[in-house]
Amino acid sequence: MKHIEHIGIAVKDLNTAIPIYEALLGTPCYKTELVESEKVNTAFFQTGNNKIELLASTDEEGVINKYIQRRGEGMHHIAFAVNDIHAEMERLKKAGFRLLNEVPKKGADNKLICFVHPAEANGVLIELCQDIG
Amino acid sequence: MKHIEHIGIAVKDLNTAIPIYEALLGTPCYKTELVESEKVNTAFFQTGNNKIELLASTDEEGVINKYIQRRGEGMHHIAFAVNDIHAEMERLKKAGFRLLNEVPKKGADNKLICFVHPAEANGVLIELCQDIG
Repeated sequence: MKHIEHIGIAVKDLNTAIPIYEALLGTPCYKTELVESEKVNTAFFQTGNNKIELLASTDEEGVINKYIQRRGEGMHHIAFAVNDIHAEMERLKKAGFRLLNEVPKKGADNKLICFVHPAEANGVLIELCQDIG
Repeated sequence: MKHIEHIGIAVKDLNTAIPIYEALLGTPCYKTELVESEKVNTAFFQTGNNKIELLASTDEEGVINKYIQRRGEGMHHIAFAVNDIHAEMERLKKAGFRLLNEVPKKGADNKLICFVHPAEANGVLIELCQDIG
């Protein structure tokens, strides 16, 4: 794991959350991106070499909405940058961690991503992400 | 806000959580530190210029234990490095954020810290931290 690539934060409504995070972080939202496969709208902020990613469901039944119904708005996952996602997935499987997807999938911000089950990581949902070319 | 200084993760027991995070992050815990004023034991891991801080209450009535009783183990706060904590506190107050302490206090890892109320930040507990000299 190289560094924290981003922290994902689950919010109900992107339009109200973006100005809050612009004021909090003192930096403008530099990009919004719809990830249709995940039914999620995202908004990104840069702080040093880390990002904050706000996540809002586009669908009442979306995974972020379900998370908010259970736990309220708040921190959703920690994403770590990796050089070789396949090697890192193999390393984690051998160490006893469960992966939520067996092959990397395409995430927001031009990344290959894979999630690690929170049950083996003290309740924290971990994402691995590798830049695509 | 310069970059993410660390992510705080609430755990029940540091002795079981440390080897899990060593395996997950692929890096050893480089320091443990007792913060008596907060009744919390901490363990630190370096990933790039960010840290992961595991937090465990030293007392049944500690704030981390109470958090775990309400929400389970998991992400507790995001800490951002700042150059001038007093200036940043003033900026955030003027922007309408509530601070959980009116003057900076001494935190783990030789920092001056201040927390921002999660109610104005979509449920996320934010910490500001400035290196002490």
